[in-house]
Amino acid sequence: MNTSAGAAQGSRLSVAPGPHTLRAELERELAAVFRVRADAANAYGSQFVRLWTLAGESVLGGKMLRPFLFLDVYAELLRATDASPKKSGAETPPLLSTGDGASDCVSIVSIAASIELLHYSFLLHDDVIDGDLTRRGKPNLIGALLAESAAETRDPEFTSPARDATRDEAILHWSRSGGILMGDLLLASTHQTFARAQLSHATRVRLLDLLDHTITESVAGEQLDVGLGDGMISPDLATILSMSASKTATYTFELPLRAAAILAGQGPRMENALAAAGRHLGLAFQLQDDLLSTFGDPALHGKDTFSDLREGKQTALIAFARMTSAWPSIEPLFGQASLSVEDGARVQQLLSDCGAEDFMRGLVDEQLRAFSEVLANSPAQISAGVQRILLQLAGRLEGRNS
Amino acid sequence: MNTSAGAAQGSRLSVAPGPHTLRAELERELAAVFRVRADAANAYGSQFVRLWTLAGESVLGGKMLRPFLFLDVYAELLRATDASPKKSGAETPPLLSTGDGASDCVSIVSIAASIELLHYSFLLHDDVIDGDLTRRGKPNLIGALLAESAAETRDPEFTSPARDATRDEAILHWSRSGGILMGDLLLASTHQTFARAQLSHATRVRLLDLLDHTITESVAGEQLDVGLGDGMISPDLATILSMSASKTATYTFELPLRAAAILAGQGPRMENALAAAGRHLGLAFQLQDDLLSTFGDPALHGKDTFSDLREGKQTALIAFARMTSAWPSIEPLFGQASLSVEDGARVQQLLSDCGAEDFMRGLVDEQLRAFSEVLANSPAQISAGVQRILLQLAGRLEGRNS
Repeated sequence: MNTSAGAAQGSRLSVAPGPHTLRAELERELAAVFRVRADAANAYGSQFVRLWTLAGESVLGGKMLRPFLFLDVYAELLRATDASPKKSGAETPPLLSTGDGASDCVSIVSIAASIELLHYSFLLHDDVIDGDLTRRGKPNLIGALLAESAAETRDPEFTSPARDATRDEAILHWSRSGGILMGDLLLASTHQTFARAQLSHATRVRLLDLLDHTITESVAGEQLDVGLGDGMISPDLATILSMSASKTATYTFELPLRAAAILAGQGPRMENALAAAGRHLGLAFQLQDDLLSTFGDPALHGKDTFSDLREGKQTALIAFARMTSAWPSIEPLFGQASLSVEDGARVQQLLSDCGAEDFMRGLVDEQLRAFSEVLANSPAQISAGVQRILLQLAGRLEGRNS
Repeated sequence: MNTSAGAAQGSRLSVAPGPHTLRAELERELAAVFRVRADAANAYGSQFVRLWTLAGESVLGGKMLRPFLFLDVYAELLRATDASPKKSGAETPPLLSTGDGASDCVSIVSIAASIELLHYSFLLHDDVIDGDLTRRGKPNLIGALLAESAAETRDPEFTSPARDATRDEAILHWSRSGGILMGDLLLASTHQTFARAQLSHATRVRLLDLLDHTITESVAGEQLDVGLGDGMISPDLATILSMSASKTATYTFELPLRAAAILAGQGPRMENALAAAGRHLGLAFQLQDDLLSTFGDPALHGKDTFSDLREGKQTALIAFARMTSAWPSIEPLFGQASLSVEDGARVQQLLSDCGAEDFMRGLVDEQLRAFSEVLANSPAQISAGVQRILLQLAGRLEGRNS
């Protein structure tokens, strides 16, 4: 592996700046991306400008968990490299600029931003597929387009050309199409950033392989999720666990951690160790999410109580229950859009009594144990600083209460 | 501009191999892409394998106009460079392999294949947005997924978990989601190929800029088309012409021609001349397409008669008619899904009598004249061989009968 950056320039990201500085830098970068795009969109009309503007507002309102994980671990890996005694033949990190360099130079913060944009692109297409107009209680991009379009005073002379569509249907179609198209634009944008990084061919290929793996796995997970929801794929436990691991865990944990390793000049051993830690942590989060949306406090968790049950969402909880004698009692209520609060509470009790709840908690614990095992015993010797970041993340998981 | 390829290796594409050889090479490349992807998809279950397999069959059934245009013009540009007396300081084409080289080496044929995959990715999302299940009379990917899913014997124990969706709705949802997801995968795949080409940083950035421009313009054009169809954007002539130029002409003509120029080591002057020629030709094709779908012979054209009128499609033809005294007679019939053959013929007559048909023919001629002007008088001095390819393409336009 050759990690010497042929044409790399600029200085390293300053190690561990305060979280406020980092957030500000990342927000500045993301705001700049959308501002430049919205300006360029002027050539194609005001609706294209609006699409970019609304998407930018939506992205900037996010928590940015993924890019922070990437930046934090990147900084810690560099710090560990600096602190260790130099071995002859040691690899030099392929440096990227901090973002204050020449305009054609990809910065570490712009890689972080593109990780957030990939996440947002997946969310958009997921929302289109699920028909969702909100996310975490706020209108998503589709919902925002819908609200703006409906509120707009339209040319009184003008009527919708497709006579078989009502005005509401036309607005919904327009808004969902906007979601598909912005998802495409941001998927492309992420690739552009990864492709332009001035790295050696070998390092760029490693980064592109990672992006390819991330997209393949996330799309495969989404397809499983859709297939489970539409009844096209049998909801056995193995399939549901595979879906849970692929759909969001890969791009949320594995991508930021592996990208940080590659760009900090780490070899495949560290990359693989961080990938394994990320996968275990990611699956633990996903399983706990499924658990909380049935057993959690909706006020804390932000989801409607019983929404998973009403949707008929195929989770590991349900897959376990399906194998028990409780299933004949649960089955008639599962997937009923009009499930009453009483019936919801009854299903909750049945899921608990049949052992499904304990089984899920066991699965979460198992993933956390495997995660700790990687941290403690990986031959890659994950540094104390990186361990601290990952343990803090795992701590959030334990802090979330049912 | 620096076009010397730092790490380029392999031999040039043999200049002007027979069309059968080229087609076979391109088909082999595309078949290999889908075979490798389908094999890798095995890790995620049989439905993911099927998605890749069906998409591969669909792509391999295409006409591949775009990659051939790219390969033909690339070969001719290289031939012209070889024939011209060497000037000191002349640029060396950034060589790519013919595809028989090392596996991590991007070949000129794989760039051609990725141009076809980008096209297909756009078609897929366009079909999702339009709700189309067929293309040119055959099932598209969504239609193929629908047919296979409906025909499948399903687990008799298993019922669709979402009780409020009928089985037909669930299958349609599953199939459309497959269209969205495969479009994402192929959009990503095109970027991967462009990003991995072993070119100098400057040349790769030129190629990535072109890809970015292509995607932005095509998506902006698609958004305009959707907005016109949904009545969210006013159907004035300027907007419709902008949509017609952006939505397909850019990726169909400008992309292959400019990519050929960049990879054959041509400077911006030739790239711009070919871009201009491509844009004029592309708009001529699009306008003639709109003309033929109202006035053409449906048996030759492959579209249902009056389908554009029934859909209420906002074309330049309609935008012109809207400004004439014929509009009050056309307007009540325009966009009626149940338009009778008699009423269709009546609209056809009205569109002809009010001058809209002649206006459209005039626009097509204008674009063709501008195209000829670029060929004849561009300071880039487009070679006779490249001119022949482009004129042959323009000839197809004239051969299509109304």
